[in-house]
Amino acid sequence: MEMMDLLKKVTAASGFTHAAGVEVVAAEVGAVTLALARKPELLQFSGSFHGGVLAGLADHCAGAAATTTLAPGKIAVTVDLHINYLAPANGEKITATAQCVQTGSTLCVVSVSVSSTRGGEAKVCAIATVTLRVVDMPRMA
Amino acid sequence: MEMMDLLKKVTAASGFTHAAGVEVVAAEVGAVTLALARKPELLQFSGSFHGGVLAGLADHCAGAAATTTLAPGKIAVTVDLHINYLAPANGEKITATAQCVQTGSTLCVVSVSVSSTRGGEAKVCAIATVTLRVVDMPRMA
Amino acid sequence: MEMMDLLKKVTAASGFTHAAGVEVVAAEVGAVTLALARKPELLQFSGSFHGGVLAGLADHCAGAAATTTLAPGKIAVTVDLHINYLAPANGEKITATAQCVQTGSTLCVVSVSVSSTRGGEAKVCAIATVTLRVVDMPRMA
Amino acid sequence: MEMMDLLKKVTAASGFTHAAGVEVVAAEVGAVTLALARKPELLQFSGSFHGGVLAGLADHCAGAAATTTLAPGKIAVTVDLHINYLAPANGEKITATAQCVQTGSTLCVVSVSVSSTRGGEAKVCAIATVTLRVVDMPRMA
Repeated sequence: MEMMDLLKKVTAASGFTHAAGVEVVAAEVGAVTLALARKPELLQFSGSFHGGVLAGLADHCAGAAATTTLAPGKIAVTVDLHINYLAPANGEKITATAQCVQTGSTLCVVSVSVSSTRGGEAKVCAIATVTLRVVDMPRMA
Repeated sequence: MEMMDLLKKVTAASGFTHAAGVEVVAAEVGAVTLALARKPELLQFSGSFHGGVLAGLADHCAGAAATTTLAPGKIAVTVDLHINYLAPANGEKITATAQCVQTGSTLCVVSVSVSSTRGGEAKVCAIATVTLRVVDMPRMA
Repeated sequence: MEMMDLLKKVTAASGFTHAAGVEVVAAEVGAVTLALARKPELLQFSGSFHGGVLAGLADHCAGAAATTTLAPGKIAVTVDLHINYLAPANGEKITATAQCVQTGSTLCVVSVSVSSTRGGEAKVCAIATVTLRVVDMPRMA
Repeated sequence: MEMMDLLKKVTAASGFTHAAGVEVVAAEVGAVTLALARKPELLQFSGSFHGGVLAGLADHCAGAAATTTLAPGKIAVTVDLHINYLAPANGEKITATAQCVQTGSTLCVVSVSVSSTRGGEAKVCAIATVTLRVVDMPRMA
């Protein structure tokens, strides 16, 4: 599937998402799911995933979900992100699911839910709303 | 200075801020400045710092600034974070400055400005508002 | 039903929600629906409902939904509110539906959807996320 | 002054800001101050200004401040608004001051501070960050 391939390519490109180990779990038009396994360098000092890592995963997931709704050659970049932390993300992995709420020629709005999975049980640990702007795809660095 | 020492200790503890390389630049009651040098694993595919990294630095900086206003043994943890991305963070380093707007026995509100420095020139690349909750300091993992 | 009665009483008390004409449509534990009919003093100059009126309805609806989850004598007051405007609210009425995402002894988080109904057709015109604090119910002024 | 005149005209046009009684206190390129006197229909049941009224004043003030930076015939409309309530707005009037943080051909970002004045003393009761989109000025309804 072409969309899945492009998304995997962008996510696996060198940089934050590659270094963190973000995996593309599912992708369809307007909805993307990403996962990230626990690693020491993603945690805060209490042993849960760092809030910035949750925000980063939500941000990337929102951008991916919005971009799947756009014409080829266009990409959605984050204008602003609002995230509520609901519970410590103290599981073995975190999973973000983004759903495009609105898509337009200028702006997109995406809702994201992040859950933490511990011992096979998933619990929502954050929700986010992301506003994105539609731009021409930049060349990969 | 005791506050600076504690802050450096928390920031340098194993985890996201240690792995990323966050440095404590300045700290006083209600105001903290942190910096982060450019590294490949902090970037997005266009070569700028990843939005999640900016959010993570803003989050950590806000938590530090709020905690400096609290009684010993108390720490501020993020309830929600709202960040606006204003310009690509394409410099050699990014610097976050957090100013505590309100502190109370239950909640704190902190304003953060993140700038990107390129060739000696700093430019604001994001602003954030962070709401935090006051809790007992957890034991370090 | 007691909850519905209390909610109607607070909403109909003198003040903004009374003057605006907010109606309680439905209420259960953790979920409340409010409606507001079009009136000239609720619009902006282009003829749609003013953004502040949508924010006010979302705010009130979130507070009501959160309060239904609390012990008697407790009420939830807004700490911060984030609202995304998705489409002009140009209908004959607007309806807000709030769903409590998290409730605790200190804080609640509520998701709100606001729709505008025109010629019998409802369209989502705004979504909001509201963080609230649990306090003792103040005496009515 | 032309800008002040246009702003007063839009604010005094029939609708929410006219009915509420919003006054234009000051306006320059990128910065606007609005005030609103206490009236029963602007309050919540505890006797303070309703959160929706504060959000509405912040929203209108942000739109005005952003619009002053745009070419004639363009207007800034709110995409999303994030507001933190810091203290009860229990004074005789509230005053909002908006400062444009970024202006562009597509988007603007504005910071707003709302204070409540009681017995001659002003106290900040809310801060907001507003993201706006640049559109062609609609015809007045």
